[in-house]
Amino acid sequence: MTERNYLWKGFPHILHGGDYNPDQWTGTPQIQEEDMRLMKLANCNEMTLGIFAWAKLEPEEGKFDFSFMDRAMDMIAENGGRVILATPSGARPAWLSQKYPEVLRTNADRTVNLHGRRHNHCFTSPVYRKKTAEINARLAQRYKGHPALLMWHISNEYGGECHCAMCREAFRDWLKRKYKTLDALNEQWWTYFWAHTYTDWSQIEPPSPLGESSTHGLTLDWKRFVTDQTIDFMKNEISVLKEITPDVPVTTNLMGFYQGLDYRKLAKELDAVSWDNYPVWRGNEISDIELASDTALIHDLNRSLLGKPFMMMESTPSHVNWHTYNKLKRPGQHMLSSLQAVAHGSDSVQYFQWRKSRGSSEKFHGAVVDHVGHENTRVFREVAELGKRLGKLDCIVGTTTVSKVALLYDWSNNWAIDDAQGFQRNDKKVMRTIRKHYRPLWRRGINTDVIGFDDDFSKYSLIIAPMIYTVSEELENKISDYVSRGGIILCTYMTGMVNENDLCHLGGFPAGRLKDVFGLWNEEIDTLYPDESNKVYAAGREYKAVDYCEIVHPTSAETIAEYGSDFYSGESAATVNNYGKGRAYYVAFRDEGDFTDTLTEALLKEAGVASEFDGALPNGVTAHSRTDGETIYVFLENYSMQSQSAYTGFTWSTADSGEVINGEISLKPYETLILSRKLTK
Amino acid sequence: MTERNYLWKGFPHILHGGDYNPDQWTGTPQIQEEDMRLMKLANCNEMTLGIFAWAKLEPEEGKFDFSFMDRAMDMIAENGGRVILATPSGARPAWLSQKYPEVLRTNADRTVNLHGRRHNHCFTSPVYRKKTAEINARLAQRYKGHPALLMWHISNEYGGECHCAMCREAFRDWLKRKYKTLDALNEQWWTYFWAHTYTDWSQIEPPSPLGESSTHGLTLDWKRFVTDQTIDFMKNEISVLKEITPDVPVTTNLMGFYQGLDYRKLAKELDAVSWDNYPVWRGNEISDIELASDTALIHDLNRSLLGKPFMMMESTPSHVNWHTYNKLKRPGQHMLSSLQAVAHGSDSVQYFQWRKSRGSSEKFHGAVVDHVGHENTRVFREVAELGKRLGKLDCIVGTTTVSKVALLYDWSNNWAIDDAQGFQRNDKKVMRTIRKHYRPLWRRGINTDVIGFDDDFSKYSLIIAPMIYTVSEELENKISDYVSRGGIILCTYMTGMVNENDLCHLGGFPAGRLKDVFGLWNEEIDTLYPDESNKVYAAGREYKAVDYCEIVHPTSAETIAEYGSDFYSGESAATVNNYGKGRAYYVAFRDEGDFTDTLTEALLKEAGVASEFDGALPNGVTAHSRTDGETIYVFLENYSMQSQSAYTGFTWSTADSGEVINGEISLKPYETLILSRKLTK
Amino acid sequence: MTERNYLWKGFPHILHGGDYNPDQWTGTPQIQEEDMRLMKLANCNEMTLGIFAWAKLEPEEGKFDFSFMDRAMDMIAENGGRVILATPSGARPAWLSQKYPEVLRTNADRTVNLHGRRHNHCFTSPVYRKKTAEINARLAQRYKGHPALLMWHISNEYGGECHCAMCREAFRDWLKRKYKTLDALNEQWWTYFWAHTYTDWSQIEPPSPLGESSTHGLTLDWKRFVTDQTIDFMKNEISVLKEITPDVPVTTNLMGFYQGLDYRKLAKELDAVSWDNYPVWRGNEISDIELASDTALIHDLNRSLLGKPFMMMESTPSHVNWHTYNKLKRPGQHMLSSLQAVAHGSDSVQYFQWRKSRGSSEKFHGAVVDHVGHENTRVFREVAELGKRLGKLDCIVGTTTVSKVALLYDWSNNWAIDDAQGFQRNDKKVMRTIRKHYRPLWRRGINTDVIGFDDDFSKYSLIIAPMIYTVSEELENKISDYVSRGGIILCTYMTGMVNENDLCHLGGFPAGRLKDVFGLWNEEIDTLYPDESNKVYAAGREYKAVDYCEIVHPTSAETIAEYGSDFYSGESAATVNNYGKGRAYYVAFRDEGDFTDTLTEALLKEAGVASEFDGALPNGVTAHSRTDGETIYVFLENYSMQSQSAYTGFTWSTADSGEVINGEISLKPYETLILSRKLTK
Repeated sequence: MTERNYLWKGFPHILHGGDYNPDQWTGTPQIQEEDMRLMKLANCNEMTLGIFAWAKLEPEEGKFDFSFMDRAMDMIAENGGRVILATPSGARPAWLSQKYPEVLRTNADRTVNLHGRRHNHCFTSPVYRKKTAEINARLAQRYKGHPALLMWHISNEYGGECHCAMCREAFRDWLKRKYKTLDALNEQWWTYFWAHTYTDWSQIEPPSPLGESSTHGLTLDWKRFVTDQTIDFMKNEISVLKEITPDVPVTTNLMGFYQGLDYRKLAKELDAVSWDNYPVWRGNEISDIELASDTALIHDLNRSLLGKPFMMMESTPSHVNWHTYNKLKRPGQHMLSSLQAVAHGSDSVQYFQWRKSRGSSEKFHGAVVDHVGHENTRVFREVAELGKRLGKLDCIVGTTTVSKVALLYDWSNNWAIDDAQGFQRNDKKVMRTIRKHYRPLWRRGINTDVIGFDDDFSKYSLIIAPMIYTVSEELENKISDYVSRGGIILCTYMTGMVNENDLCHLGGFPAGRLKDVFGLWNEEIDTLYPDESNKVYAAGREYKAVDYCEIVHPTSAETIAEYGSDFYSGESAATVNNYGKGRAYYVAFRDEGDFTDTLTEALLKEAGVASEFDGALPNGVTAHSRTDGETIYVFLENYSMQSQSAYTGFTWSTADSGEVINGEISLKPYETLILSRKLTK
Repeated sequence: MTERNYLWKGFPHILHGGDYNPDQWTGTPQIQEEDMRLMKLANCNEMTLGIFAWAKLEPEEGKFDFSFMDRAMDMIAENGGRVILATPSGARPAWLSQKYPEVLRTNADRTVNLHGRRHNHCFTSPVYRKKTAEINARLAQRYKGHPALLMWHISNEYGGECHCAMCREAFRDWLKRKYKTLDALNEQWWTYFWAHTYTDWSQIEPPSPLGESSTHGLTLDWKRFVTDQTIDFMKNEISVLKEITPDVPVTTNLMGFYQGLDYRKLAKELDAVSWDNYPVWRGNEISDIELASDTALIHDLNRSLLGKPFMMMESTPSHVNWHTYNKLKRPGQHMLSSLQAVAHGSDSVQYFQWRKSRGSSEKFHGAVVDHVGHENTRVFREVAELGKRLGKLDCIVGTTTVSKVALLYDWSNNWAIDDAQGFQRNDKKVMRTIRKHYRPLWRRGINTDVIGFDDDFSKYSLIIAPMIYTVSEELENKISDYVSRGGIILCTYMTGMVNENDLCHLGGFPAGRLKDVFGLWNEEIDTLYPDESNKVYAAGREYKAVDYCEIVHPTSAETIAEYGSDFYSGESAATVNNYGKGRAYYVAFRDEGDFTDTLTEALLKEAGVASEFDGALPNGVTAHSRTDGETIYVFLENYSMQSQSAYTGFTWSTADSGEVINGEISLKPYETLILSRKLTK
Repeated sequence: MTERNYLWKGFPHILHGGDYNPDQWTGTPQIQEEDMRLMKLANCNEMTLGIFAWAKLEPEEGKFDFSFMDRAMDMIAENGGRVILATPSGARPAWLSQKYPEVLRTNADRTVNLHGRRHNHCFTSPVYRKKTAEINARLAQRYKGHPALLMWHISNEYGGECHCAMCREAFRDWLKRKYKTLDALNEQWWTYFWAHTYTDWSQIEPPSPLGESSTHGLTLDWKRFVTDQTIDFMKNEISVLKEITPDVPVTTNLMGFYQGLDYRKLAKELDAVSWDNYPVWRGNEISDIELASDTALIHDLNRSLLGKPFMMMESTPSHVNWHTYNKLKRPGQHMLSSLQAVAHGSDSVQYFQWRKSRGSSEKFHGAVVDHVGHENTRVFREVAELGKRLGKLDCIVGTTTVSKVALLYDWSNNWAIDDAQGFQRNDKKVMRTIRKHYRPLWRRGINTDVIGFDDDFSKYSLIIAPMIYTVSEELENKISDYVSRGGIILCTYMTGMVNENDLCHLGGFPAGRLKDVFGLWNEEIDTLYPDESNKVYAAGREYKAVDYCEIVHPTSAETIAEYGSDFYSGESAATVNNYGKGRAYYVAFRDEGDFTDTLTEALLKEAGVASEFDGALPNGVTAHSRTDGETIYVFLENYSMQSQSAYTGFTWSTADSGEVINGEISLKPYETLILSRKLTK
């Protein structure tokens, strides 16, 4: 039994708006007036204010000027809108770098950055923490209770790392807390190799092109430290806000599967997750359908981080300016890709940016209002049309997503594989593999959560866990318990080779009890060249193996696929093992083709998981649902460039227009239908 | 009515010679004797002396030794030749760097170079300016009035930039002079974006990989500063020479469309323009004909810089050693490519180098005299044969070029586009586009000038101005005036998006009045992937659009081509607008194929511009003319590897041999005929 | 008349073993017990101990702990094995870098490395020399006379270079010793070019991306200095060992044609040469047969360095972890590739590594014992099977190789060509050319030595000397003498262009007397593009020329091949010249196809050199021999994946099993037969 989960208070609408920078236009106040007129025309109800406004807010140290922000807050409130107010730490004024050079970031090669760009600060610097807390406090004190203030947007796209002396010392302290003794650290990092044993904590340096780069435990811990130090910095930003405005929720904008931070840890400190979504739509049916699935995966990740609705904090109404080729969104793509976010749990459709900047780096990034300055553009019209439709979707706000299938993805695991010296050395293709396993779920309209090693497994009937290379004892037990209690799991080649610190499991792979869970052991892993492949036979069909073929020895497992060539022809290529009340599948090779799809279909059936839409889904059409426990809302999305038909046995009404729908359902190219019906209890 | 324009005094011959380095052979004086014998055999009348000779001229600080140069000057004079004498600032002695480290160049990443290479100095350093002025003064004092001294060759291929503290301070001073106030600078650079507002001049740093790289106004101004600072350094070199030898003209050797300096500004300080010409001839007909056109374009640029004859200061008689593949010039290519320079206005054919260096970096660069040391080589014979022919062309010296067509090319505009964040991000292909528009003119034998935004437009009947992205108010007015008074102009996609400081024009594109001139506005620009294209239909023919398709809305313009596919199928792809007494063409897409050629032909007809040769030109054959106002000299050049025929209605005589030519004219592979006839007044 | 040449004393067996690191497992002593059990099962008789064990041996400065090593030495001795004991200088403890930062390596860009990685030390540092000498002395004193001690393994894979102030000063001293005067240096480096003349020794800096990189003489001498300084460091390591254990031979492990050091010089200081062999076997017949030839070439190089048996110090029983794609060795490949080493003169088959490391960089590098820890793996079984066979080959130990053909390869020459500015600038393909010339010898089963410019030429009937670009006066005379006394030589394009310091030979190419030896001179070298080729006709057949076509003029030489197209069609493409009692062949072009093979066959015939096996060799099968002067041992190796047949006229017995063999001989896929017969005197 689910309930609505609201991300903010007192404004039960899908947010439609985005980054708004009147601080760039203080010299032309009439522009701000015009913005208000256009926002209404565009059916926008929200603006995100103050990102990168520090230089305007505090032009000299200690001298503040909130006039542009006062005016914007007031005008938006008067127009019935709301503001997500940003803290400005993503880029600081030049005077700050000049007076306090310690805030400048130091690179891995020990060069120190000059002032410039953004996201160019040390996360450890006491000065920078003090200065950001001060400006945050000023903002909170000034706008506490302002009718427009809906939420805090903490900094912007946190990322990067700093190697200054303060950060290096903080890293050593982090390591002391983790390992307690140097002996323990030496053991876990296996520094006995190449005489790398540390005899004093002060000898430890972060990974650097000038120094150590192949002690994998060090590299992995450094990445973890970077996440923790960033969180620590963020908490420093948040705490002052919470003190002054305890009821205003906080978020920060994430960047999908960004590899620089473990978002699962970071999200724990937020009231809401939001992210910046810039898929490379091309108006090419084949690549766009694949992209739709890949984007859906990221939406699912963001929703799963806190297990509730999220926000699409940024997207573009037309094109960006930083892709290699910056193509226009085709007519209709904007509506479709915006509703995709909502389908997966977003309670907002927000843009970077409201009005195109007049100069500098992002002046050609798409925006609602173009340099031409008026509303008579295709992009503006499409935004306004979408805004109108979102305005009819209050029923969706706060509804949640129920999934019986989970895809397991862990940042540390990905870092460790990418850093592994071996296999196909330059690209292990973790993300591609994750996307490959997600695709069969997407095209069947299966609600899916994307969870981490520490999340609760028991909610799911089926867990798909590709390439879980790092397996701690805790995870080993957790998988074992999950399966023994009736769960179905699918793992692959490279499962359980190392522990959480990248130290190999002795006694062979997969680690410890997993050999019983899967009923096999893995003797060797053959790495194939890109021009090579093997054949795999299963249930009378031939499949194709690429990249990796493990040679595994079933003990209790049943073989469900076998290799068709090379010296291990006839050996097991995939197996299933009954373990306790559950079933554990092991796919020993990398599939290029249909094997994953076919197997996933069988597993869904075995797990009793069905599509969110009761009819068959044609190519390029998918379905995802949200619910408040009483009504289910199914988004039927057509990513193909053709009209498509689907058949339903239910009678639905559309959530936005109330139209009754049953039997054959027609979808125009790029069309999304939002169907609703009462759930039977 | 033109007149002869002589670049130097008292030597009315085409120069034939090149870089001569007896300073490398002082240990073997007999080599210098042999050089004199060989120069006569090679029909050379000029040598360029002293480039990179500083270490020989001043082996210790303040201790000078001009003996090798005295001897060379005297011997050449005795043999009736002339010397272009170089200042040696392109590479300094090691003792100078050792004693005065401030002269060493600092890189953008703030690392400081060691001594070594060449062109490795700070253009701001007072010490380096003092030292170069001193050695220049010594040279001028010593050789003032020497019968061999023809001209000064200032330094060598100026280029590069320095980021030392002195240069950074000079940059700030330059900015203060340009913008007067920080407010004005902040406005033009739009530093309001990302909180980049400067509150003190000292906060400004040049672009750097360690700091700012995306404030486009900063980057653009830095490039302008580099040009101005280089000019300032060069003027410091020149002034001392002019004081002592006021009648000896100065030049420096340029490098085509080199992107490091705005040559149009630099040329203003010179008496003559010269350049170093190293096309990659391959002996492959298709690529060589294209290359011939591309090389002709650069010759035209160099002639247009000062609007008079120029010099080909360097070229190779065989091959270079720094191309990726250093292929031999095929027999005949040397004669052809040398005469091409003369056809476009060069009054010299000069080589790097007379004699191959025995060691170090360029020892395998082609030369007139090879390591074998004698004259019995193919290369030597071809050089001597060319020298003989040039000796018969005194009639050409000082004649000028009359063009009714101009191609608009501006360095700042190119810098700004290349740096633009958007479109096809990694390569905007400005130069390729310029070459594409030049090609139809070249293959039709049309004399063409290559002019800048500040040049006089009124001389031309037709101006072709592709991709003029930066349009100042001044340029906007200039174009408007030119067309309204009867001029024909062709512009393309990306016209007039930003002002001269890369700040977007509000109110839409193209900028301001240009919307009236072209009778349209440009709503969106679609960037295509390399594997994509659109169709364009014009006058019943199909063309191909790639890379960019603008969606423009004609207001008063007439559509002359329309798109054939995608969501803007049927929209205008090219237009023409009557404006005042003139006509303004706008091509909204990038052409891959014949559209440019077909349109150019129509424009030439409309502008009443005809070929320099009265007959049809077969494939690979072109014609360019020079004149003294009474006689016209037409160079008929065959770049194909086939014999070709052309037909003329005039009666010509050849300039070198006086042979009478009319009716059918035969051209052997690689042959150049130089036709002359009296002009009828 | 040859004799056996033993590399070590008192253990007349092929060594079978490898790198053993009990220092990584001191926390689990039972692992060391298990290692002894497994070594016997694997039929191993040797372990290499102590590489990278410094941190364990000297955990604090001056505090030593040899316990793990004592135990290992004793246990191995008890089991009848022997130990090759390593000095630990390849990686030092962290405390050493921390206390004495001068030992850290400085890069060419003058950045100083942090502690970390390995091979990261200055070869000049007095501190590092003192510290390595001290630990070496400790080892020698402790294990002097230990029954297990067979040999010293000095450091590990010496390589790299340091640019610190001490190294720069040492380089200047080296130059002073070589050139005596700056004048001589300036002349040889031709610093007259670009005013690079040095007027004080202190002005000389090593090549650097921040400074000089195109004074080729400087670059070449720097590389020579790096070799000499590394040797000097190595001798510092060796001398202390020789003092204490004068009878224990020393080796260090080389890396094939590694370009960082001139191994020919370094080998002179060793008692035995050993090398680390990691070919990229793929289980692809075409590429594996080519690879077999390329690997054989390196074995021949290593044997030729000291002209006696060598050791294969490292190889992998399965796969490595640092190739781009780390594929498994196919069943049988391990036996074959191991016996290949023995066929070419190795008296050992050794592995990196005995037991897989548990963590850090090389944990996935193949090993005899896998993480699973037991003997029931395919890899272990193949190792044990090989060990058993090697155990029957005592008869091979110390036998030597007799070659009548030599391939000339010189490190300095390769460095100079690679650095040459000209030709195909980015890749001159020296090694590919060497391999191309070796292949016809390999496939015909011809014993071949790989010798340097300083080696004795008189032993050979045929010398193949491709691309000998640097020819000193001494070499010029040596070649001339060799041919005049009856030798046959084959040289190619680019022969004799520069002297030993990269200074061009005046008077043309090839240098001086070589023009007489080859009876021609070389006027020009045409460099082709990768998409171009020329035809060559010889004896009625057509061949293909790529990359380089020299235009040579025979004086006395006879043309044996001529060009078929381009402007030099009909000119000589290959020649032979009678000179004294010998014959000098010159191939003026680069062959892509069969020309080299066909010509080599003719030359072998002319030189009277025959295969080591009397019958014809099918595709992928080759033969190489070793002998003690009385018996010849012929290794018949099948690299194809097919069964193959060969026919012999002799009666042989197999060296390992004593089986009689004659007539038709069958070889299974990947099989090696070791045939022996008495030589008739």
